[in-house]
Amino acid sequence: MKTVGNISEMTSISKNEIIKGKKIGFVPTMGALHEGHLSLVREARLDNDVTVTSIFVNPIQFGPNEDFNKYPRSIEHDSELLRNENIDYLFLPDARQMYGNNFETYIDLKNLPAHLCGLKREGHFQGVATVVAKLFNIVMPHTAYFGQKDYQQALIIKRMIADLNFSIDIKIMPIVRENTGLALSSRNQYLTQTQKKEASAIYLALKLGEKLILGGENRSSVVINNVKEFILANIEDAKIDYVCASDPENLSDIDKIENGVLLAAAVYVGSTRLIDNILIRR
Amino acid sequence: MKTVGNISEMTSISKNEIIKGKKIGFVPTMGALHEGHLSLVREARLDNDVTVTSIFVNPIQFGPNEDFNKYPRSIEHDSELLRNENIDYLFLPDARQMYGNNFETYIDLKNLPAHLCGLKREGHFQGVATVVAKLFNIVMPHTAYFGQKDYQQALIIKRMIADLNFSIDIKIMPIVRENTGLALSSRNQYLTQTQKKEASAIYLALKLGEKLILGGENRSSVVINNVKEFILANIEDAKIDYVCASDPENLSDIDKIENGVLLAAAVYVGSTRLIDNILIRR
Repeated sequence: MKTVGNISEMTSISKNEIIKGKKIGFVPTMGALHEGHLSLVREARLDNDVTVTSIFVNPIQFGPNEDFNKYPRSIEHDSELLRNENIDYLFLPDARQMYGNNFETYIDLKNLPAHLCGLKREGHFQGVATVVAKLFNIVMPHTAYFGQKDYQQALIIKRMIADLNFSIDIKIMPIVRENTGLALSSRNQYLTQTQKKEASAIYLALKLGEKLILGGENRSSVVINNVKEFILANIEDAKIDYVCASDPENLSDIDKIENGVLLAAAVYVGSTRLIDNILIRR
Repeated sequence: MKTVGNISEMTSISKNEIIKGKKIGFVPTMGALHEGHLSLVREARLDNDVTVTSIFVNPIQFGPNEDFNKYPRSIEHDSELLRNENIDYLFLPDARQMYGNNFETYIDLKNLPAHLCGLKREGHFQGVATVVAKLFNIVMPHTAYFGQKDYQQALIIKRMIADLNFSIDIKIMPIVRENTGLALSSRNQYLTQTQKKEASAIYLALKLGEKLILGGENRSSVVINNVKEFILANIEDAKIDYVCASDPENLSDIDKIENGVLLAAAVYVGSTRLIDNILIRR
């Protein structure tokens, strides 16, 4: 595994690989890696000749009151994990090189961000789309890997790829969970032991919602209320940011559940915001 | 010369050329080609192994009250001109393929569009940046060619390339003019013979401004007033949209001219909006 810090060095490496006819798989991350990230890395290794993972805590996707400064950073440990996965390149761009003094170009989507997390985190998906476009242009992968936990993010990247004609395939991998059901997240590190144990109720609540839907309940409001009540009854420190039943393609709210539905939740456990979702096909 | 209409066909052609180690030069146009466009095409031919020219009248860069519908279209004649220049590929994407039903991704610059034409044509440079990013991703050129007549456009594309890490060089070619001094433009077709003759006063006015500046005048207001007066005195049907003395790098207004300055004008001659500029280094 070679670690690359310089943007133009990363690009020439990629260009060389492409000219040799190699397929590049790319896993963009913010580090603090867990088994969720590693599942993406392993898939990228299986599908491609060359695997690139980037670690970059992207300042422009954090709001002014969010956790950019305290976001967990553990480059040495991450580096060790990636070396064990036998990836080819670890790309660690530095923020001054990514966003120079005159930086002013942003990528905006008009519809997909106007739902779920996008309503709660202003500018978040603009920051995500912009940094991912930059990373795509630097790394020039054939396939990029994202996790389903950030379902809205994955959908936005898919849309951006199609709209801006990037020649990149996207592969969305399933959510990796603790044995308790809690979705793995770098932010789980913020939780106390008790909070972490209780936080599994987010997934259990979504599963309860799924059970209701598969049992024939088609009123979103009933499902959503049950999910919310379960969360509040089982997590002492919970504050619900949202629980939504959404169209899996365009993320608009669904009132009457007929076909597929994305059941998605964002919950503060103490001051830690956690997200989770399940995709239900009836 | 091969004409390509399909986006994915264009992309596979480019990928094949890249894997063969060929350098691709790209000239994006809206058609109605004149010697200005052809000067870009010739430069692209000299610099590269493969030359691609696109013709696409991009709907999203026209405002609701602008001339999208009547914009001159002359594909047969354009095609003939390009064949004579021995380009390799003429790319003619169709609008339904470029902007499908769910299209929603746009590229926005925060500063450069807030000057000159950007103030007068809301959303114009968002449309330009977006379509050029799409064309860049489809054609994957090594070098792209733009004309200095659209100085602000060229600067915005340059900024976008740097900010989004496109691996593309940009080459800005000088304005090509009629013998009278009138800058070539597809929109000159809208002018009557008299208007066309008189419209050369836009360039002569800018040259007058240049003479004042090189003679020591450093008050922009004085220069600008002289330019405006010259235009109004020499074009019967003129309405001045703007005349500005701008910083050539960030396009902000310059009050006191010290080093370089961009002297730029937009003038309605009848209902036809013409632009021109000169870059002055003291």
